[in-house]
Amino acid sequence: MVDIVIKEGKIVTPTDIYEADIGIKDGKIVEIARNIEAKAEQVIDASGKYVLPGAIDPHTHMELPFMGTTSADDFEAGTIAAAFGGVTTIIDFAIQPKGKSFMDTIEIWRGKADPKVVIDYSLHVAVTDLNEERMAELSKVLDYGVTSFKLFMPYRKEGLMSDDGRLYAMLDASREHRFLVQVHAENAPVLEYLVEKFLREGKKTPEYHALSRPNFVEGEAIQRAIYLAHATNGNLYIVHMSTKEGLVAVAESLNKGFPIYAETFPHYLVLTEEKYYGPDGRHYVMSPPLRSRADIEVLWKGLASEKIVTVGSDHCPFNSEQKAMGKDDFTKIPNGVPGTEVIIPILYSEGVRRDIITINQLVKFTSYNVAKLFGLYPRKGTIAVGADADITILDPNYEMELSVENLHTKIDYSIYDGMKVKGVPTTTICRGKPIVLNREFVGKKGEGQFIPRSRFTGL
Amino acid sequence: MVDIVIKEGKIVTPTDIYEADIGIKDGKIVEIARNIEAKAEQVIDASGKYVLPGAIDPHTHMELPFMGTTSADDFEAGTIAAAFGGVTTIIDFAIQPKGKSFMDTIEIWRGKADPKVVIDYSLHVAVTDLNEERMAELSKVLDYGVTSFKLFMPYRKEGLMSDDGRLYAMLDASREHRFLVQVHAENAPVLEYLVEKFLREGKKTPEYHALSRPNFVEGEAIQRAIYLAHATNGNLYIVHMSTKEGLVAVAESLNKGFPIYAETFPHYLVLTEEKYYGPDGRHYVMSPPLRSRADIEVLWKGLASEKIVTVGSDHCPFNSEQKAMGKDDFTKIPNGVPGTEVIIPILYSEGVRRDIITINQLVKFTSYNVAKLFGLYPRKGTIAVGADADITILDPNYEMELSVENLHTKIDYSIYDGMKVKGVPTTTICRGKPIVLNREFVGKKGEGQFIPRSRFTGL
Amino acid sequence: MVDIVIKEGKIVTPTDIYEADIGIKDGKIVEIARNIEAKAEQVIDASGKYVLPGAIDPHTHMELPFMGTTSADDFEAGTIAAAFGGVTTIIDFAIQPKGKSFMDTIEIWRGKADPKVVIDYSLHVAVTDLNEERMAELSKVLDYGVTSFKLFMPYRKEGLMSDDGRLYAMLDASREHRFLVQVHAENAPVLEYLVEKFLREGKKTPEYHALSRPNFVEGEAIQRAIYLAHATNGNLYIVHMSTKEGLVAVAESLNKGFPIYAETFPHYLVLTEEKYYGPDGRHYVMSPPLRSRADIEVLWKGLASEKIVTVGSDHCPFNSEQKAMGKDDFTKIPNGVPGTEVIIPILYSEGVRRDIITINQLVKFTSYNVAKLFGLYPRKGTIAVGADADITILDPNYEMELSVENLHTKIDYSIYDGMKVKGVPTTTICRGKPIVLNREFVGKKGEGQFIPRSRFTGL
Amino acid sequence: MVDIVIKEGKIVTPTDIYEADIGIKDGKIVEIARNIEAKAEQVIDASGKYVLPGAIDPHTHMELPFMGTTSADDFEAGTIAAAFGGVTTIIDFAIQPKGKSFMDTIEIWRGKADPKVVIDYSLHVAVTDLNEERMAELSKVLDYGVTSFKLFMPYRKEGLMSDDGRLYAMLDASREHRFLVQVHAENAPVLEYLVEKFLREGKKTPEYHALSRPNFVEGEAIQRAIYLAHATNGNLYIVHMSTKEGLVAVAESLNKGFPIYAETFPHYLVLTEEKYYGPDGRHYVMSPPLRSRADIEVLWKGLASEKIVTVGSDHCPFNSEQKAMGKDDFTKIPNGVPGTEVIIPILYSEGVRRDIITINQLVKFTSYNVAKLFGLYPRKGTIAVGADADITILDPNYEMELSVENLHTKIDYSIYDGMKVKGVPTTTICRGKPIVLNREFVGKKGEGQFIPRSRFTGL
Repeated sequence: MVDIVIKEGKIVTPTDIYEADIGIKDGKIVEIARNIEAKAEQVIDASGKYVLPGAIDPHTHMELPFMGTTSADDFEAGTIAAAFGGVTTIIDFAIQPKGKSFMDTIEIWRGKADPKVVIDYSLHVAVTDLNEERMAELSKVLDYGVTSFKLFMPYRKEGLMSDDGRLYAMLDASREHRFLVQVHAENAPVLEYLVEKFLREGKKTPEYHALSRPNFVEGEAIQRAIYLAHATNGNLYIVHMSTKEGLVAVAESLNKGFPIYAETFPHYLVLTEEKYYGPDGRHYVMSPPLRSRADIEVLWKGLASEKIVTVGSDHCPFNSEQKAMGKDDFTKIPNGVPGTEVIIPILYSEGVRRDIITINQLVKFTSYNVAKLFGLYPRKGTIAVGADADITILDPNYEMELSVENLHTKIDYSIYDGMKVKGVPTTTICRGKPIVLNREFVGKKGEGQFIPRSRFTGL
Repeated sequence: MVDIVIKEGKIVTPTDIYEADIGIKDGKIVEIARNIEAKAEQVIDASGKYVLPGAIDPHTHMELPFMGTTSADDFEAGTIAAAFGGVTTIIDFAIQPKGKSFMDTIEIWRGKADPKVVIDYSLHVAVTDLNEERMAELSKVLDYGVTSFKLFMPYRKEGLMSDDGRLYAMLDASREHRFLVQVHAENAPVLEYLVEKFLREGKKTPEYHALSRPNFVEGEAIQRAIYLAHATNGNLYIVHMSTKEGLVAVAESLNKGFPIYAETFPHYLVLTEEKYYGPDGRHYVMSPPLRSRADIEVLWKGLASEKIVTVGSDHCPFNSEQKAMGKDDFTKIPNGVPGTEVIIPILYSEGVRRDIITINQLVKFTSYNVAKLFGLYPRKGTIAVGADADITILDPNYEMELSVENLHTKIDYSIYDGMKVKGVPTTTICRGKPIVLNREFVGKKGEGQFIPRSRFTGL
Repeated sequence: MVDIVIKEGKIVTPTDIYEADIGIKDGKIVEIARNIEAKAEQVIDASGKYVLPGAIDPHTHMELPFMGTTSADDFEAGTIAAAFGGVTTIIDFAIQPKGKSFMDTIEIWRGKADPKVVIDYSLHVAVTDLNEERMAELSKVLDYGVTSFKLFMPYRKEGLMSDDGRLYAMLDASREHRFLVQVHAENAPVLEYLVEKFLREGKKTPEYHALSRPNFVEGEAIQRAIYLAHATNGNLYIVHMSTKEGLVAVAESLNKGFPIYAETFPHYLVLTEEKYYGPDGRHYVMSPPLRSRADIEVLWKGLASEKIVTVGSDHCPFNSEQKAMGKDDFTKIPNGVPGTEVIIPILYSEGVRRDIITINQLVKFTSYNVAKLFGLYPRKGTIAVGADADITILDPNYEMELSVENLHTKIDYSIYDGMKVKGVPTTTICRGKPIVLNREFVGKKGEGQFIPRSRFTGL
Repeated sequence: MVDIVIKEGKIVTPTDIYEADIGIKDGKIVEIARNIEAKAEQVIDASGKYVLPGAIDPHTHMELPFMGTTSADDFEAGTIAAAFGGVTTIIDFAIQPKGKSFMDTIEIWRGKADPKVVIDYSLHVAVTDLNEERMAELSKVLDYGVTSFKLFMPYRKEGLMSDDGRLYAMLDASREHRFLVQVHAENAPVLEYLVEKFLREGKKTPEYHALSRPNFVEGEAIQRAIYLAHATNGNLYIVHMSTKEGLVAVAESLNKGFPIYAETFPHYLVLTEEKYYGPDGRHYVMSPPLRSRADIEVLWKGLASEKIVTVGSDHCPFNSEQKAMGKDDFTKIPNGVPGTEVIIPILYSEGVRRDIITINQLVKFTSYNVAKLFGLYPRKGTIAVGADADITILDPNYEMELSVENLHTKIDYSIYDGMKVKGVPTTTICRGKPIVLNREFVGKKGEGQFIPRSRFTGL
């Protein structure tokens, strides 16, 4: 007697596709078979659909205080949007307030998230104030289940920046303590020089956001972070890689046999810098900025060849009123866009349908690889007997426009307006409980859990 | 009601390990679950053991007429040895007799194999006489289910050699017709020059076999074959790669984004050229020859980084009497050694136990990748509901010496004499039928089937 | 008291340009100074002109018996043409007749050349029949002053081909004996396969000459020759490199710190394969064939970056009657074009004038590097006190069409018809004797000397 | 009638060696010939010796105010030492005082140098305070004859550091204005982190100077500077490269066809980091520090392959009393060592004598390349009619210990104590005037001239 049976879907793992039923009991997958006899309380028909391990979005910023405002989706709204995108776990960034300990930081974020999340979640610490005391706290944090730390190479005036000395220290520690160092890689002094130059010249419209962060600003910083990773034998994860220059640097390291883990996002895979020249250019302001068509092609190739290993979202939406804070000065536009809801639809429609990536690779990028890298595997990230019943049912024939109406983030516009996708998650199950069922929200606020993660062991 | 249940093993796929039972019915896997209720006719206890998809040995030469004699294991003896090694399918080479069609060649080999095989098998065609007529026959052969063709760059006097023009033609055809071209890569004129030089100098002992085929003889030929693959956009598989030079050439192609599929064998992973200087040096004569310790390390790294994608055996044993044909002249020693039985024991003991490769990778190299490349997937190469119930149960604690007594090839010596392994297949099941059960042979001659293969679609 | 003073020219060496007079006595340069007092028997005004070390053409085939006929310029006509091109020394190929010794071969060629040459010359041996006896003869040949040996990878049916074993043997010997191995690099079996295929399909017009030798046919063979050079630590010189693929292979070796010396010709620098589609397509048939515009650009970059180190001519003209032997079958067209007279005009007009190469580099490619590589330095290849007075005066403002009328080869057409150059050698002096003076021939048949060369010592 | 004849020396240029006499008049070379008739006022016998173009030391710091003291050699003492080393021109660094213009900076330095120099000199500006006003001043400075600018990536607390934004701006300007950007490349935040860490741990002895600046600290910074040079298409010169990591970065750029000019110094070519563990470890403190034996070998290979193109000295000696300022704390040791006098002796003894580099290359590294890169050519950097008569006579048989007694810097110790060289400049002539004659100083204070330089045109 099981709780739920998912009938006749095409089960997809990183390496297989096959038709079978899945039996779920007490939040776990307990049986995979042809024709499970109907002893289930609930039967979900998945015939003609793909059954994927639930996506894990490794990069979200729910209710983030940033640049004088707060990102528009709180943990409830944000996780509902995620669930509609087939995401069953998010890993949000707990941003260290200056002077606070890592553990305090985590507590602050748990205080915000625990009562609101509708799916499971975990936390990275975003380090902003590293010193001897914080280094001494690492073991405790790792034991608690937070096993990844992000450093920002830019954002000096926003108070987030870490210099190369801090980055070196953390990469050095990552080897011994087995954690992952996530890096936001942009060359701060060069971009600041360019920003100042543009402001001095009176160039303040949104396109100058992009022009002050040309490709090499990211490329150089990625190359530098990799150099320090080699020097320390550290564990490096490049967040939101957006350029061909970045991929070249990552590929060179891989060719030398030194793994570097690169992440990208759906907006870098379909939108170009031309958006900054339109009337709502500021809606597209995030860092790093949108790039060229050539970069898009290279990023897809990077996925196809698995040099890029994860696809997250950097979900951090601001509504149009918030974005208007920078209407006269691009440096005042809150940086960020939504995204957690479109990861799978965009990867499927633009990647799998066009034969650029396989659906097995989609599962790697959105679930398996994320779970492995961030210590959630084997509890999450796979469809196997014994794993959490985190499952996304993807209807390959479901068509939808990525309009404000169809998306669940709270903001009042869509950066994908007019874009249609075919292939959408219709049902999302987290630990055996349906959260979205046939495109209806059936979850409950606060039912998601904080998931402690194990230490880094590679991919 | 199922036929067999395999209880409580640790199931290993290319990406997962988890504990569950497997239910088998009518030769297929029909159920994977915790605690399958005991409705099975036969229950096999796998607790504490690994349950792997049956190995597929992509490179055997059973009862091969070669160099004036015939390899010592016929299809019965050879497939029994294979089954003891956890192999559930072999792919043997049907060597084209001069003037014969490919289809005739296949028929000859089926005539030898069908009545004798105890496990499943398929065939490659080894091309020795390519012309317009043979090119015209390709479609028919592919439709029949033979979708890989081997060319020999050396073996001029043995009548097997194809020149670069033939290789070019086949690689060119492989793209359009979707098959895989297997290449034995050694530079013929250089090795012949060295052989003649040594013979002229009276140097005829077995070590001169190795000295006439130094690393670069393989390295150059691999590089050349790759060059032609690039020129034609052809599908190239390097058989029995033995050198670091070969790996470098393959890696360069991979770095350019052009896949080349490389295979190696257990003897290249544990034995060195020093063997040729011993009293039974001729027992180790095969082409390419054994290499240095440095090459061994590089090959293991090639496996760890998955630049080498399959491990076969080149099973082609000759007994000591046959080997003695060349006791006064290394050029008369029949080339070949046994191996199909030691693929898994050596990969497990020397690779997995030493943390060089994972057990998931072992499954890729011995089963999943072979099935994908040679068109046997998804019928074979995986443990998933719906697949053939080809299963190997590996006891990680079973210790054994690789002695004549313990191995099942017919020959009267072991090239691994004195070497101990820990981790041995104890039970092998082919299409739901136990062939080896707890190290006892329980199969039957002729019960294996010829398996037609589908066209090449990449890895 | 000197014999000749060259007044007020701009003297060019590989690294300097400066204005001075040159005093010549007894065939040697004895003085370089401002305002040499007029004690000379002859004063040659070079004001406004460049004074270069005489060019050395490392690749000519005068009166060559080939493909059933003989190249149209004998040693007199050919060296007159050379002198008009500013060439003061040629190195011709003595083609070994099957069964003949190297010394006999040299004697045959000296018999043809000595009575006729109007400038100095030396010889390479083109090896066609290598065996133990020939290997044993090497020291004698080297002591005689012939220190470079050419091997042909193609031309099987013409009886010139050497296989990889022979190439290996010669490269191996080149290290110990210090000579240079010149290689004509094309993959014979592949080009033969393509030729046969085209003939079978009735495709016999000149463009199929080019289509049967696509870029990779050269690229692969160059890469293979380089591989064998690395294996033997041998001294390798690639003659007539025509492709970007070739340059890539050479550049990879240079990047590894292993020198490979590459040569190209003027026709590969200005003419494209489109010529084969014209009515006189067969006039352009040589091996390797003309290539694309993209290859031309890469070859110029190879010169600019000094990855290509010499520019010769492969001077081997056939008149239109001879070329007509292949009017119905491209395989019967005698391979070869003229060129020794246009090396400097084309390098200057197309290279120096367009700022692609410097005039110092022109001196390296045409004189200094050739002299160094082939053992003529310091006697030849430079303008320095003590060196042979081999001098070319280049008038940078002299304009000329490369028409039949203006060129001095005996053939009845020009492959450069319609092409204009600006910058032409007007005076050529060999060992202190003017051969061409203000575009008038003033030399004498048989006054050139055979110049013995020293062993290879690198560039 | 000439002023001086240098008789019978072996004249060395970047590409030739030949025996001839040199006639000098009015400070210029006017004649090169065999047996110049003895009409000279002064005859200098150079038989058995090499006659080189005078060396140009591109990197000196005479009477430099630094770290609370002033380097021990003023422009008189320093240029006398230089002359004894065969140096006929130095290029010193005019360090911009904060707030001062570049022109003022130059005037300050000319005020110090003009009255004292015994050989010619020029100046680079070392930029410490870059802003819009300074950028606007560039044209004027370039027209004045100062065409190279140095930026420091480290030395934050010493007030010299420029960030990546400043470096980007200067590289960007260098392309348009045609000047050379010299970079002291070390990663400041990483080395500062390590320094702080060591100080905190009480590790203050000289070896911690080296340990706080490991190879990658230089390697990363060089790679970063190159990245910015690529991004701007700027002209980049790496000063004092000391590591294999640096060479790898430079070589990668060269392989891509983008020139980067690298300089090294004699101390990096013969001394190792072991010196820091000796009792006078602080005498060896400079930045970057001494490295390992492996680095030394790679630097010599970099010279042999001409990936490193110049050898200067960073002459900046401090006497033992000054060095003692840091006896309890390595961060207080004035950074710097002498060197201008040993460039040629060390390159000759350790490089040419050991057949690692040729004497032609020695001329390139010490004279020709420096003159070309820094706009002194063709006036200086060569031996050719018309050039300044800057000449160094090197006696290849002169043996000398590099002891305090034999060297001419003012400091009271020698970092090369005990090291012997064979091959020493014995006579140095600057613009036709002997400065050192047979190891005797015969020059005069203030007779050297400031030499304006032309804009950058590449090597």
